[in-house]
Amino acid sequence: MNYRIIRYIIGWVLNFEAILMLPACAVAVIYREQAGWSLLATVFLCLLCGAALTWRKLQNKAMYAREGFVAVALCWIVLSAFGALPFVIAGSIPSYVDVLFEVVSGFTTTGSSILPEVESMPHCLLFWRSFTHWIGGMGVLVLVMAIMPLAGGTNMYLMKAESPGPSVGKLVPKVKSTAAILYKMYLFLSVLQLLFLLAGGMPMFDSLTTVFGTAGTGGFGVRNDSIGGYSMYLQGVVTVFMILFGVNFNAYYLIRSRKPRQALQSVEVRTYLLIILSAILLVTVNIASLFPNPFEAFHHAAFQVGSIITTTGFATKDFDLWPTFSKTILVALMFIGACAGSTGGGIKVSRVVILFKSILKELDYLVHPRNVRKLKMDGRMVEHTVVRSVNVFLALYIFVFAISVILVSLDNFDFTTNFTAVAATINNIGPGLELVGPTRNFSLFSNFSKLVLIFDMLVGRLELFPILVLFNRRTWVD
Amino acid sequence: MNYRIIRYIIGWVLNFEAILMLPACAVAVIYREQAGWSLLATVFLCLLCGAALTWRKLQNKAMYAREGFVAVALCWIVLSAFGALPFVIAGSIPSYVDVLFEVVSGFTTTGSSILPEVESMPHCLLFWRSFTHWIGGMGVLVLVMAIMPLAGGTNMYLMKAESPGPSVGKLVPKVKSTAAILYKMYLFLSVLQLLFLLAGGMPMFDSLTTVFGTAGTGGFGVRNDSIGGYSMYLQGVVTVFMILFGVNFNAYYLIRSRKPRQALQSVEVRTYLLIILSAILLVTVNIASLFPNPFEAFHHAAFQVGSIITTTGFATKDFDLWPTFSKTILVALMFIGACAGSTGGGIKVSRVVILFKSILKELDYLVHPRNVRKLKMDGRMVEHTVVRSVNVFLALYIFVFAISVILVSLDNFDFTTNFTAVAATINNIGPGLELVGPTRNFSLFSNFSKLVLIFDMLVGRLELFPILVLFNRRTWVD
Repeated sequence: MNYRIIRYIIGWVLNFEAILMLPACAVAVIYREQAGWSLLATVFLCLLCGAALTWRKLQNKAMYAREGFVAVALCWIVLSAFGALPFVIAGSIPSYVDVLFEVVSGFTTTGSSILPEVESMPHCLLFWRSFTHWIGGMGVLVLVMAIMPLAGGTNMYLMKAESPGPSVGKLVPKVKSTAAILYKMYLFLSVLQLLFLLAGGMPMFDSLTTVFGTAGTGGFGVRNDSIGGYSMYLQGVVTVFMILFGVNFNAYYLIRSRKPRQALQSVEVRTYLLIILSAILLVTVNIASLFPNPFEAFHHAAFQVGSIITTTGFATKDFDLWPTFSKTILVALMFIGACAGSTGGGIKVSRVVILFKSILKELDYLVHPRNVRKLKMDGRMVEHTVVRSVNVFLALYIFVFAISVILVSLDNFDFTTNFTAVAATINNIGPGLELVGPTRNFSLFSNFSKLVLIFDMLVGRLELFPILVLFNRRTWVD
Repeated sequence: MNYRIIRYIIGWVLNFEAILMLPACAVAVIYREQAGWSLLATVFLCLLCGAALTWRKLQNKAMYAREGFVAVALCWIVLSAFGALPFVIAGSIPSYVDVLFEVVSGFTTTGSSILPEVESMPHCLLFWRSFTHWIGGMGVLVLVMAIMPLAGGTNMYLMKAESPGPSVGKLVPKVKSTAAILYKMYLFLSVLQLLFLLAGGMPMFDSLTTVFGTAGTGGFGVRNDSIGGYSMYLQGVVTVFMILFGVNFNAYYLIRSRKPRQALQSVEVRTYLLIILSAILLVTVNIASLFPNPFEAFHHAAFQVGSIITTTGFATKDFDLWPTFSKTILVALMFIGACAGSTGGGIKVSRVVILFKSILKELDYLVHPRNVRKLKMDGRMVEHTVVRSVNVFLALYIFVFAISVILVSLDNFDFTTNFTAVAATINNIGPGLELVGPTRNFSLFSNFSKLVLIFDMLVGRLELFPILVLFNRRTWVD
């Protein structure tokens, strides 16, 4: 194992974290908030540690899959540990486990909170809290790679470990350029949403934090009622952009490259939109009687379906009060999640499509063993290793899920609370049902359960393997 | 497709069903019950249809995987439809959907009931209801094959489709002999349990029906409080035999062949016993405070763990009142299920072992792509097609499970009820939690939900593929 390159990458992530904290410091200056000092102190601490780790130039740039996984997993842990410091220093959240929960929830774009209310928190800390969503959405290592020539061509492994989806490909031959293009598109869509929100009369601070929450499919709000207090227009803008940020960014690249037809022919994007449309229709019909008119039912159904399938987790209504059918559909959407190569979490639509196709193939194989068609997607054959990896992903996902629910059940809350709490964290959504419903929060859990859920958020964001590779003995021996 | 052989096999299943109904007729004579006539009428109806279908001798005995799956799936549907007739004719259960639910629950060894109480039902019908467990446990086609020379060597396909487990093998070269050996061991263990129960002072009728429920891992009781009213000794006997009937019958064959060491070295059997032991310990500690002494807690923990992991579903206590941790462990055991090649349901321990091993292999592959060990079990390499089939099984299982929970949620009961109702039926267990807990029943569901759960019971017993193959267009074209 090339430990030096891992140390070096962690160092650069810390340097970047320092820089990424500066906007929050600026917010502190604007609002003249004392809490700004805690941010500034953390900036210096990050720079200090970052500089120490990156001081010596790297000689051996050799990096393989193993180093890629370990580096990404450790970077995310370090990122969260340092990102929590401003809250600790400012003393705005007393328990360290709670702070860690909140910050991991931010970086992993989960949006689950242990705060019973947020409006009393200083603006600069709220800003940083929401900004972690934006950083975590596209990935901090993708950002580092977009700017730094880290390790030549071999840093493809970092991208594979950090970016969501069963088979991460490059948009252009160079990893550095791919990362830069991704961030440019991400920035463009974010600015676009910001303009739409400002046009609707949302204040600048609220607009920025809402964009961070939407773009990263995170879900932290700066109001106690999440998005419920804003106008129907603003809620509509958020609905549309949540769904847009859940689309595979490859599709946007194709549109940018003037191949819009190819973008729309993507099986994943089509399936994603089809699932959203069907879910909205079913929920609308199911909740219609709760609203004065069908349009309002449609409005809230669309918002909630968009919020859950993209794993954002914003809420306009307490969907825990909706009929069980609607709630069950939302729980199912939690697991499906957004497209691969988007900022969303969950199992991902492309994995669901591959699993579905492998079922159909097996049913064919059973009756016609000698005449089985290849598994294809978008006209191309899906590689055997990808299919296998998707299948193993599902098995591993269920193991982690089941063990988490069992561990969390030690707190003796009801089964639905535990099940949806794990579903909401491992899929990086935010709210669940019952005691962790959209009007509640995660503070009721014991520290032990919170640590389990923190683990689930990290494992979910990095798609299981990078974190679990850390626990495999063979990773650490040659 | 060779439709004639399918028709012929269905015919023989009906002939056998007629014969298998005779013991229940005898019970009617002993207790001088009017309901006996409804059984006798069904016997004649089965013989009539059976004779019509088997009258002409079969010319073309060619049977492939396709015919095997279709024949098994259709046989089970026909078996259930005719098995329901005595209840319909006797009028003891008014709704036909309810009767079908009860009988499918019997044959699939589920044990979920729509009856609020059973003690008022005639003995002969209760006997037939419990006897369906015994028939369904080892499989009706295995029984037919053990006696009839159906289609030469090619009926291995029937066995593969009906018997549980990822890779069904023959004990001896001939399928007919394998089937006969399996039924002999099944009968031997059943008689052994009967003797133990009679020795404990259980009445003959109760002993017989309890043996049917235990041997088939079914779970129908003839008392309203299931097994709760019997002595601790009798409950202990049931506990031990439930666990014994959940063991892979290959292990018993090895013991019979004087290779007991080999039987104990089976990874599946070891894992199965290890899971049972750990679960009993955890539940005992968790529920200790609810009982006057630790031994009683251990007694009920062992009974309930044995009952759930083997998918029997008997109850001595209302475990829905236990702490959430214990309940969650029981729910997890529902999914694991018993060993392959036993009479139990669920995903099966050997599938769980293969999934776990394929996860470890993938974690190795990710860090050492060029140096991956083969997936082995019991010292032998697991074939690629078996691993693939297990993975696809899991994906299909989750699809069916999720869609079922969504459909059942239309009745607007709580999430835990719906989730555990589907878990209890697809895994062929019996009781779930909340509204379908051990002291409740399934009568609250709408007919639509009951049909969904009937489908789940059949799909679960036949391990998904045979039933779902019926819905694949390519099964019916050449």
